[in-house]
Amino acid sequence: MSAITVLGLVAAALTTGAYIPQVVKTWRSGSSADLSMGTYAILLAGLVAWLAYGIAVDDLPIILANAVTIVLVGAVLAHVLLSRRRAAARRRAP
Amino acid sequence: MSAITVLGLVAAALTTGAYIPQVVKTWRSGSSADLSMGTYAILLAGLVAWLAYGIAVDDLPIILANAVTIVLVGAVLAHVLLSRRRAAARRRAP
Repeated sequence: MSAITVLGLVAAALTTGAYIPQVVKTWRSGSSADLSMGTYAILLAGLVAWLAYGIAVDDLPIILANAVTIVLVGAVLAHVLLSRRRAAARRRAP
Repeated sequence: MSAITVLGLVAAALTTGAYIPQVVKTWRSGSSADLSMGTYAILLAGLVAWLAYGIAVDDLPIILANAVTIVLVGAVLAHVLLSRRRAAARRRAP
């Protein structure tokens, strides 16, 4: 395995695993008000496009890295959506 | 330009531009308490590794996409670090 391949794998591992601390912090604190829903929605769309691209070019690292990141980013986006919905329900409550 | 290349460019544009709403929200609201410093630090390291990888394999799209994302993610991380330092200073103040 060449040094360049190792560099690519390290880059993929970092940009994939990077979201783990945010998932833990968000679900533990229960607070995601400062997170941009737009960022996580666009990011999710981009990751799905990368996954489709990886399947189209039959590139396993691209498929795996983006599949894992979709799960992590999806977990953050789910929390943001749920807490926004709860906040809206509280505002409507009499 | 093949459909697969277009798909790759769309994926790169989405995962690069995705951070713009977070940069705007963070610098406008002045609040980044819910953001994970770990996520943005690891993400920045991963993006620098991708930039080095792009230079090593002489791939302009990888170089450009990651250079732009480094600026955006760097802007968010800078705000997180600054606000944490200010909060620490306030705690130490007599």
